[in-house]
Amino acid sequence: MSQAALPSRSRAVRSRAELTSAIATAYERIERDQHRNCWVYVRPMAEALAEAENLAGRGAQGEFLPLLGVPFGVKDNIDVAGMSTTAACPSFAHVAERSARCVERLIAAGAICLGKTNLDQFATGLSGARSPHGACPSAADDRYVAGGSSSGSAVAVASGHIAFSLGTDTGGSGRIPAGFNGIIGVKPTVGLVSSRGLVPNCPTLDCPSIFCNSAAEGKLLLGLVEGFDDEDPYSRQAPGLSSVFPREFHFGRISARQLNSFGMPECDALYERACERLVRLGGQAIEIDFTPFTEAGEMLFSGPWIAERYASISRLLDIDQGELLEVTRKVLHSAAQFTGADAFAAQHRLLKLRRQVRLFFEEMDVLVVPTAPRPYTIADMLQDPIKLNNSLGYYSYFANLLDLCAVALPNAALPTGMPMGVTLLAPAWHDHALLDFASRWQPDEGGALFGLKVYSPAAG
Amino acid sequence: MSQAALPSRSRAVRSRAELTSAIATAYERIERDQHRNCWVYVRPMAEALAEAENLAGRGAQGEFLPLLGVPFGVKDNIDVAGMSTTAACPSFAHVAERSARCVERLIAAGAICLGKTNLDQFATGLSGARSPHGACPSAADDRYVAGGSSSGSAVAVASGHIAFSLGTDTGGSGRIPAGFNGIIGVKPTVGLVSSRGLVPNCPTLDCPSIFCNSAAEGKLLLGLVEGFDDEDPYSRQAPGLSSVFPREFHFGRISARQLNSFGMPECDALYERACERLVRLGGQAIEIDFTPFTEAGEMLFSGPWIAERYASISRLLDIDQGELLEVTRKVLHSAAQFTGADAFAAQHRLLKLRRQVRLFFEEMDVLVVPTAPRPYTIADMLQDPIKLNNSLGYYSYFANLLDLCAVALPNAALPTGMPMGVTLLAPAWHDHALLDFASRWQPDEGGALFGLKVYSPAAG
Repeated sequence: MSQAALPSRSRAVRSRAELTSAIATAYERIERDQHRNCWVYVRPMAEALAEAENLAGRGAQGEFLPLLGVPFGVKDNIDVAGMSTTAACPSFAHVAERSARCVERLIAAGAICLGKTNLDQFATGLSGARSPHGACPSAADDRYVAGGSSSGSAVAVASGHIAFSLGTDTGGSGRIPAGFNGIIGVKPTVGLVSSRGLVPNCPTLDCPSIFCNSAAEGKLLLGLVEGFDDEDPYSRQAPGLSSVFPREFHFGRISARQLNSFGMPECDALYERACERLVRLGGQAIEIDFTPFTEAGEMLFSGPWIAERYASISRLLDIDQGELLEVTRKVLHSAAQFTGADAFAAQHRLLKLRRQVRLFFEEMDVLVVPTAPRPYTIADMLQDPIKLNNSLGYYSYFANLLDLCAVALPNAALPTGMPMGVTLLAPAWHDHALLDFASRWQPDEGGALFGLKVYSPAAG
Repeated sequence: MSQAALPSRSRAVRSRAELTSAIATAYERIERDQHRNCWVYVRPMAEALAEAENLAGRGAQGEFLPLLGVPFGVKDNIDVAGMSTTAACPSFAHVAERSARCVERLIAAGAICLGKTNLDQFATGLSGARSPHGACPSAADDRYVAGGSSSGSAVAVASGHIAFSLGTDTGGSGRIPAGFNGIIGVKPTVGLVSSRGLVPNCPTLDCPSIFCNSAAEGKLLLGLVEGFDDEDPYSRQAPGLSSVFPREFHFGRISARQLNSFGMPECDALYERACERLVRLGGQAIEIDFTPFTEAGEMLFSGPWIAERYASISRLLDIDQGELLEVTRKVLHSAAQFTGADAFAAQHRLLKLRRQVRLFFEEMDVLVVPTAPRPYTIADMLQDPIKLNNSLGYYSYFANLLDLCAVALPNAALPTGMPMGVTLLAPAWHDHALLDFASRWQPDEGGALFGLKVYSPAAG
């Protein structure tokens, strides 16, 4: 936890009245937006108010509570002590005795958890339309999917219910929903933030992620939750990097012929605009070969890593008997085609791809890709749930496999008004440098951090 | 390459006469010891003499050649440009166009490669009795197995043919033969020395290893061959560690009830003596639970990592049609029982075991184990090749899986005269600290490094 990074204004002790008013606003909006299906469980308002009261008292006595009274939400595959964890699978539900470490850290900093948010079942999906609690629509347009699997966490932030939220990311779940809701998604290096208390998915690729409204908030929150955890075997010790990307930087971009918007070329045009904006920010574009990225990405669901997911989830419940959606079961059963030798051969191939991508990053500081290739309506997604879902991952699946960190940023809206994002990526452990860089894209306007902001096209 | 570590006496320019005489001695002994089956290919003596002549000239002109004229051997699953690489499988044989990076580094330092040494086929075995070129007997007693898979490399050093040699280690192949030949085996952290130019076995666990006669030599040689290699996807960047084990240190030891010498309790007694010697050197013993080590070790041949070996070797040759020994084929075919999900589940379990062992190392500086549980005669080994081979790995299989570095040291001889070793282990990247520590066990006597030393019981 790098306390040095906390901007002083976030430390200001908020008055009891301010805290109460923020919570009242949150609950009004949650009530109003029930059709968005973004919450699986909401804590009684009286409890949240009592906690705010208690925190205000502690803050007044001088306790260091950098997130004093800030309301947040937690994706329902992350444990919060005393609340049920369901992973959007009723037969898996159980009350957590202990909070995940990232949740503990946020609560210790004074944030107030309002409840658990909806997700694609067992975090398997990128659409937000694979949940027994109903599909989550984008906060910008309720005909369109919110993106997943951390759908509810992103929609709740973009709906102004909460100031930030926790999601998880294995193949884009912390980025795609940021893109379709016009907010920021921070996907840390795998192993930088403890995954203790997460429902495992592909444990070697899983990480908690953060949704928020500014890069400055993202950096502050990451500083609070990051750090090695002896209790998490997937936690990794960060090398002592403290890099800063240069003012005149190089960014990798995908050549026009390797872009794929699955039939919506207007999305490619928004990507071109993002690249132009990076040039105005001092960047020099380098066209990179996207082939190793797509090859790595295909390993996640079309390759042996589906067997990692199967191995984890089959330890948690009976895949044939548990209350799984048919689409989840079907995806998981595709694991049977992969042998142990296939799994190792793919890992060998992946290490070669990692090395190839590492060499790309010797030429560039950052890679920019569309967060998702295009939006889909909920109706279209339910019609063809596996193929369209896989299309959504075209620009995201590869990141954790290739050991990159990422931040998803709002870019621009389509003529329909749907927000579309871009994602910046850098090699593992460059998370803070990447967030500092993201602040150049989205400069901090000096206002109060952690307000409850409703998505509006202008802000996007 | 840390040139600072080079002792000045090794840099002395040797005279042409000295070089010629060392090479003549080497070839006389190689001729004499043909029954030991330790060489698969020996370079013509005239070539070696011409190279020595050339090196002497370069040295006389002031070129920095720290290994000037030192004869060495290379296990025949490591490429030496212009020589055939066979992995002890005739149908796999091919002439290497380029030397492995570790070989390149040694030749650049002035060492002279005399040829390729015998091994268990495809480095699959710990006995040294699995080769179409014949079983290698221990240099100390030709009734007993030399240990494998780097059998020839160890026997050639212990027979005084060469001053040092390269082996490889996946599950003990760089340690077991050191133990049964009374010499030193340095098994670096996986990824510290490039594996570019090695015939892959379990690529995530493979590493080149070094056989030599003193810890000081081992440290010097490691300094020459180590370092990150962009061309090797399994190479890893070392964190900037420069630890030194304290004068009053803690060592982990296995409790008497967890020792297993497979029916030869006199071997356990030698281990007790080693522990007493460590106490005299300033150590305080800590009994550790050996269970996580045995559990990890069993994953290598009785668990899914056999599928990694299958995946690598099946890419190199047709396992059913190639000229494989029946025992190698049988071992490799056992991979079929493991699914992709099994492979990932075992990797998850292994990460938990790594964390458990990491916590052990917070209490101790070094772990000491017998290098092998007991010696076996060649006759016994050929009678029951799989079961006895697995017994040999009881104290070695776990090391690479648990990401440890190791050095195998001579300990004491059994009443029969067979030398038995102990192995010191430490967490990844502590290689040099471990070798410095090994020098306390085996102090440098100040004589010339890199002499051709024939094993003698007194030295063991």
